[in-house]
Amino acid sequence: MPVGTQGTVKAVPQETLEALGAEIILGNTYHLYLRPGHELIRSLGGLHRFIAWPRAMLTDSGGFQVFSLSKLRKISDEGVRFRSHLDGSSHMFTPEHSMEVQIALGADICMAFDECTEYPADEARARESLRYTMAWAERSLKHFRANAHRVPWGGPDGEMEGQTQSLFGQTQSLFGIVQGGMHGHLRRESAERLVAMDFDGYAIGGLSVGEPRELTREVIAEVLPLLPADKPRYVMGVGFPDEIVEYARMGVDMMDCVIPTRAARHGLLFTSEGRMNIKNRQFAEDQNPPDAACDCPTCRRYSRAYLRHLMQTGEPLGGTLNSIHNLAFYLRTMARLREDLERDTPA
Amino acid sequence: MPVGTQGTVKAVPQETLEALGAEIILGNTYHLYLRPGHELIRSLGGLHRFIAWPRAMLTDSGGFQVFSLSKLRKISDEGVRFRSHLDGSSHMFTPEHSMEVQIALGADICMAFDECTEYPADEARARESLRYTMAWAERSLKHFRANAHRVPWGGPDGEMEGQTQSLFGQTQSLFGIVQGGMHGHLRRESAERLVAMDFDGYAIGGLSVGEPRELTREVIAEVLPLLPADKPRYVMGVGFPDEIVEYARMGVDMMDCVIPTRAARHGLLFTSEGRMNIKNRQFAEDQNPPDAACDCPTCRRYSRAYLRHLMQTGEPLGGTLNSIHNLAFYLRTMARLREDLERDTPA
Repeated sequence: MPVGTQGTVKAVPQETLEALGAEIILGNTYHLYLRPGHELIRSLGGLHRFIAWPRAMLTDSGGFQVFSLSKLRKISDEGVRFRSHLDGSSHMFTPEHSMEVQIALGADICMAFDECTEYPADEARARESLRYTMAWAERSLKHFRANAHRVPWGGPDGEMEGQTQSLFGQTQSLFGIVQGGMHGHLRRESAERLVAMDFDGYAIGGLSVGEPRELTREVIAEVLPLLPADKPRYVMGVGFPDEIVEYARMGVDMMDCVIPTRAARHGLLFTSEGRMNIKNRQFAEDQNPPDAACDCPTCRRYSRAYLRHLMQTGEPLGGTLNSIHNLAFYLRTMARLREDLERDTPA
Repeated sequence: MPVGTQGTVKAVPQETLEALGAEIILGNTYHLYLRPGHELIRSLGGLHRFIAWPRAMLTDSGGFQVFSLSKLRKISDEGVRFRSHLDGSSHMFTPEHSMEVQIALGADICMAFDECTEYPADEARARESLRYTMAWAERSLKHFRANAHRVPWGGPDGEMEGQTQSLFGQTQSLFGIVQGGMHGHLRRESAERLVAMDFDGYAIGGLSVGEPRELTREVIAEVLPLLPADKPRYVMGVGFPDEIVEYARMGVDMMDCVIPTRAARHGLLFTSEGRMNIKNRQFAEDQNPPDAACDCPTCRRYSRAYLRHLMQTGEPLGGTLNSIHNLAFYLRTMARLREDLERDTPA
């Protein structure tokens, strides 16, 4: 899933995402709550309509950004008080409030409010953190089930010419998030208790927080078998192309990551022949497309030499063209993987 | 003509420019000479191919940027010595060198090397400045006629799938530039002497340098009748939508300006109902398209509220979507004007 933090997958127009075959994008509850505000988005018919995106959308719970971006956060059983990274204003996120915001945004998939356990965290700290996540999961679910509504996109005034409206009339879903740090028994406990609560899907959070990749894989391998295979299983915040392939083969259904777009804006391209830092001198006169095996709009038209020039001169088109390629590469990687997995699975 | 300073119309992909109907874009000789360098572009088959733009392209002479951007410039009969605004390195532009660079870039239309007279400039200063421009025009033309070649785009290896290649095989053209400050007799002298030299087209330079708009119009009115009507007449560096309409009705065939794209990146939109600063609070909940009378990709899909949000959050998509609209507005303004003028002109 491409990440559209502030209601935009950075530097890429929605029509381009559609053409690339993106079926779902992610929005950040924390950012959208602060700017432009969830009540404004609700009053305009929800996030789909606000950003003109007729396909599926997932919003995170805001928990991760509260911990990574905000200042002076103070956690209690009730929730988290924090100061905005934008203007220092004081705010409180509770599970109920996170649900309110996500319901207002109108995402197809919402996430339970959790505490993202930092790395490293010893067993006592991870257990303490998990206590919040599990209590908040119950409160999230309760509030969500009582208040979630049908996805507002595509209503009487929501027609968008020529756009698919496959989501019209669907009800919002809520996923629980497994935490527990890198401690197997805590992860198992978290997964089992969440499954007993009966969410619409399950995510493994608290990964990609600085741990070695071997640990990431171990946690996924530990948790995945405990999650129902007939519901979506989502690993949050991963990863590089070889990682998403590995995790998908392990049984993960969904992943999100800023890597393809963030790397692109720094000139790092993922290609069928590996990674390429397009800013390198060696590409200055290279007339080849970034990836000869790619049919994205960037590779069909532009050369490595031109992309390097755009990065050297700091031109905004560089970030756009690089992002288009990286997203195409990720989406194609996943599409091929789906084909492989379908072929390998006995009917 | 949209301005593509560094080989890109800022924040807008070439395929979008094509779809908007842009038939010609402008590149800046000074910028491209410094980065990535004209020899590199020549070795890659010219600017069209380097930036993947199969339609027409015009390069300025570099004179304007030498005067507006570079440091420690020193003018002599030979040319201008200047220091790069990027790294302070020392360079010399002569008329011959400007032609060399433009020939290497391979633009369809090149511009004679001139001195852009500042405003205000008294008669003595404007005459002194014009002396350089006229001497350099002769040297530019001589060097150009001896060295210009056929536009390299579209050669044996230059095929671009699905692209118009209307320029294939055409020879580069050179336009002379009328200077003379705001002094009518100097402008007339400049025009008459240039016409006697027989350029492929004529430009009026040294406008939009801070003078009142009434003066701009006066200079154009003074010069235009002296330029052959069967050759392109180009006013450089203008203007706002009402200005380009006015000048086109006076007989101007070509104009270029950064206004549509630069204003867009600052949130200023041109619409059928006038100017709109999309950052204004009043648009925060406005679900209307930027311009209901516009069918550009931005107006077809996105709301004023969303564009405002993109500007408020500093998202790069804001500059892109705004630029697309403003370019569409300018191009449509010119297209309608052409229709009007054709209808009004007896066959």
